[in-house]
Amino acid sequence: MATTQDTLTELVRQCREISIIDSCGSLLGWDERTYMPRKGAEHRAEQLAFLAGLSHSRLVDPRIGDLINTLRTSGNTNGGDDDASVMAREVGRIYDREVKIPQALVEEITRVTTLAQGKWAEARANSDFAAFKPWLQKVIDLKKQEAQAVGYKDDPYNAMLDTYEPGATVTSIERTFTPLRNELVALLDKIRGSGRSPNVGIITREYPVERQQQFGTEAATAIGFDFTEGRLDITTHPFCSGIGPGDVRITTRYDAHHFPCAFFGILHEAGHGIYDQGLDPKHFGTPMGEMISLGIHESQSRMWENLVGRSRPFWTHFFPKAQKTFPEALGNVKADEFYWAINDVRPSLIRVEADEATYNLHILLRFEMERAFFSGGLSVDDIPGAWNEKFKSYFGLTPPNDKEGCLQDVHWSAGYIGYFPTYALGNLFAAQFFAKAQQDIPDLDAQFAKGDFSALKSWLRQNIHRHGRRYRSNILIERVTGQPLSSKPLIDYMTRKYGELYGF
Amino acid sequence: MATTQDTLTELVRQCREISIIDSCGSLLGWDERTYMPRKGAEHRAEQLAFLAGLSHSRLVDPRIGDLINTLRTSGNTNGGDDDASVMAREVGRIYDREVKIPQALVEEITRVTTLAQGKWAEARANSDFAAFKPWLQKVIDLKKQEAQAVGYKDDPYNAMLDTYEPGATVTSIERTFTPLRNELVALLDKIRGSGRSPNVGIITREYPVERQQQFGTEAATAIGFDFTEGRLDITTHPFCSGIGPGDVRITTRYDAHHFPCAFFGILHEAGHGIYDQGLDPKHFGTPMGEMISLGIHESQSRMWENLVGRSRPFWTHFFPKAQKTFPEALGNVKADEFYWAINDVRPSLIRVEADEATYNLHILLRFEMERAFFSGGLSVDDIPGAWNEKFKSYFGLTPPNDKEGCLQDVHWSAGYIGYFPTYALGNLFAAQFFAKAQQDIPDLDAQFAKGDFSALKSWLRQNIHRHGRRYRSNILIERVTGQPLSSKPLIDYMTRKYGELYGF
Repeated sequence: MATTQDTLTELVRQCREISIIDSCGSLLGWDERTYMPRKGAEHRAEQLAFLAGLSHSRLVDPRIGDLINTLRTSGNTNGGDDDASVMAREVGRIYDREVKIPQALVEEITRVTTLAQGKWAEARANSDFAAFKPWLQKVIDLKKQEAQAVGYKDDPYNAMLDTYEPGATVTSIERTFTPLRNELVALLDKIRGSGRSPNVGIITREYPVERQQQFGTEAATAIGFDFTEGRLDITTHPFCSGIGPGDVRITTRYDAHHFPCAFFGILHEAGHGIYDQGLDPKHFGTPMGEMISLGIHESQSRMWENLVGRSRPFWTHFFPKAQKTFPEALGNVKADEFYWAINDVRPSLIRVEADEATYNLHILLRFEMERAFFSGGLSVDDIPGAWNEKFKSYFGLTPPNDKEGCLQDVHWSAGYIGYFPTYALGNLFAAQFFAKAQQDIPDLDAQFAKGDFSALKSWLRQNIHRHGRRYRSNILIERVTGQPLSSKPLIDYMTRKYGELYGF
Repeated sequence: MATTQDTLTELVRQCREISIIDSCGSLLGWDERTYMPRKGAEHRAEQLAFLAGLSHSRLVDPRIGDLINTLRTSGNTNGGDDDASVMAREVGRIYDREVKIPQALVEEITRVTTLAQGKWAEARANSDFAAFKPWLQKVIDLKKQEAQAVGYKDDPYNAMLDTYEPGATVTSIERTFTPLRNELVALLDKIRGSGRSPNVGIITREYPVERQQQFGTEAATAIGFDFTEGRLDITTHPFCSGIGPGDVRITTRYDAHHFPCAFFGILHEAGHGIYDQGLDPKHFGTPMGEMISLGIHESQSRMWENLVGRSRPFWTHFFPKAQKTFPEALGNVKADEFYWAINDVRPSLIRVEADEATYNLHILLRFEMERAFFSGGLSVDDIPGAWNEKFKSYFGLTPPNDKEGCLQDVHWSAGYIGYFPTYALGNLFAAQFFAKAQQDIPDLDAQFAKGDFSALKSWLRQNIHRHGRRYRSNILIERVTGQPLSSKPLIDYMTRKYGELYGF
């Protein structure tokens, strides 16, 4: 009879092979969005569908089920945080889900979403929702089939949420989002009521793309993204892709007349990348070497982008460098003016360019849209109208076209329904982790002002990255901060920051 | 009982899946040499080893053997050129070979050659043969194991040759190379004896890299490489990689003070690319949609590089454009001076930069080196010494370092032993095909002079590309030209060309 150790070794071996298959898919996906020639799209879809099908068939092989069962019943897993228990819990969770999805559906979803992303990019460029509509319809139909196949409690949308944030439900999300929404609306009222605003013309002056690239690379390096284990490229929709140990790639998009777009985009993706680079390579392919959830992943990107990258101490170090790099745009600008301009709060059309405060409203809108078309009966035809109506009520603005409205994000074309809420969760996790880091490292601000970000990176490595998925996100936040997730740290942080800028 | 059609359909399906796996490997290999971050090398080796092992295990699955046998014995394959006969012959050939190679050896070869290519690149940069030696030893040992596993007649090197040029043997190669060597030596004597030489200083002036890139892209487009189905990137060792239908990628390297290096490199790789882009996508993954042999592939690259790209009519069209693009270097140069400079014949160190005539000597040298270390008992320690000695006797030159000597080519690190001879075969095929194309299209020169290369491309599509591997190379050359392969067309062409330039 096999020992627990033998079973564990065999399950690890199988999981590593599946992860190698997936990592081939990651590289093909990265290439598809960066360098693939246009007419390679159909063959790429074939390749990705094949790899997805292979990975799925390996995962749902009854042999994996047997190994998980052996671990679960061996008496040597205690539901704790040792390798065997973590493998049984986390591989078991994915196995139990995937075994219910027919191989043909997996392959079809991959094929359709690969093609749909190309169609979306074209439709977005032409602001042509009609061209994208049939593809969006196909994607939604396939994801509904997936929800039916895996099963759910109360709402099919819960089956989507659970993929990205294990254990999350519409109810649990609403419990977190409702106070956030209320406190945010109050905060935005105060900001609007202040009658003040910064000179944002500063940040829309000309910032030559090549110098943005160089400056962004310098900043990403400074905060700890390792370019010997990574790259920075250009794509329509910025992303981070961890290909495997020693290979983590980020992308951005440049606008020569909008400094924050690429710069904070790079910090954001570098934050994701630093997390991926901090995973333990010896655990590659197992839950102990993988991210916890998208909410936790997003907490890392948002922390570096906002809590660090939009802070005064960060710019104490970087503003003189920015002035040297962009003398025409920033030569005569004061540090305080610049700091306020990059922390301007105002309603805007594009999520990825939104400020820290209104950003969360963009997410709430998408959460409502997804629930409406996924389980609320909203037809695909009605998406642009519903989007614009909600947008008007949240932001007081009507998108002038679908490119800047419901076509702006890649997610739905890629089948990522239920993904958006993790962005707001990320903001909440980030603020709560950061408040604790500030307690643990009292001179953090002084270090940032000297351009030294290594203590924070080490703190994150130690407290978050190195554990992989050993602890679920709700356990980890309590382990690290002593408290369950709450909207208080984020609201406290914003109130302090914007109170100072807007004088309330 | 399954019909021949069912058997064929099933075998095609299996072959297509194997080709999809291989095409994932192609993309990963391309990325490894273009954009992969340095520390991603180990994980990349794992990925490629996994894919190679998977592909091999699929190919040697007894089910494939059964399908081939069913086709072979069905009475419906007639050894002819119909799909069933071609599948039985060509898939059968590879199956019969691969089934003899243990899976572990396949994976080990892939792993070691992936790492060895990185070690080679480093060793080459530092001209440090000692650092590369243990890796080369490993590669040779593994390839010898492969030769023993697959079996061979007379000489283990035959097992290597057969991979790249099906049916070729040391004996058949020598039969072709011996007259080539004799006639070439006589031709080079005449050139040396003429006492003439062009002003090669023209082509080593400053040619800014960015403009080389633009000019090279324009020329590649003009001869028919389709950039909507392809890319051009930069690598240490230029190559062409056909990822799959709609996706064929070429690379080059630039030297701001050497015009021919990148320019003819681009034409060369574009020639390979035009062949790959000319394969029939509906036959992807089967022999009817694949190249015939490396010799035929090389005939396409060498034809566009030399017979077209180094011809007078080509430069009638392109020289005025070159003058506009590089006015500092070429503004005061006459077309005749330039034409001679790019057709200068003289002994030189680097194969990929050699002229058309001496190039073949570089190949003969490598053919002898490979036979010596693979089946002749030459130790790896003695490779640099033996290389330099042979080089002196062939070229009258001694390489000043191993970087410009035995470390210059990637091939051995990649396990490509037996590959070099196909380069000289390519030159022979190219000259013989081209002579026939000139007969069939009498105004070819006039078309080139107008910048129109479409008739030659169509001729190649029609006579060569569209057949895939339906005909073996020895059959194809007779079908197309009415003659078996001979050194006469190449020597005739060179005698005519160099006779005019050097006055004999």
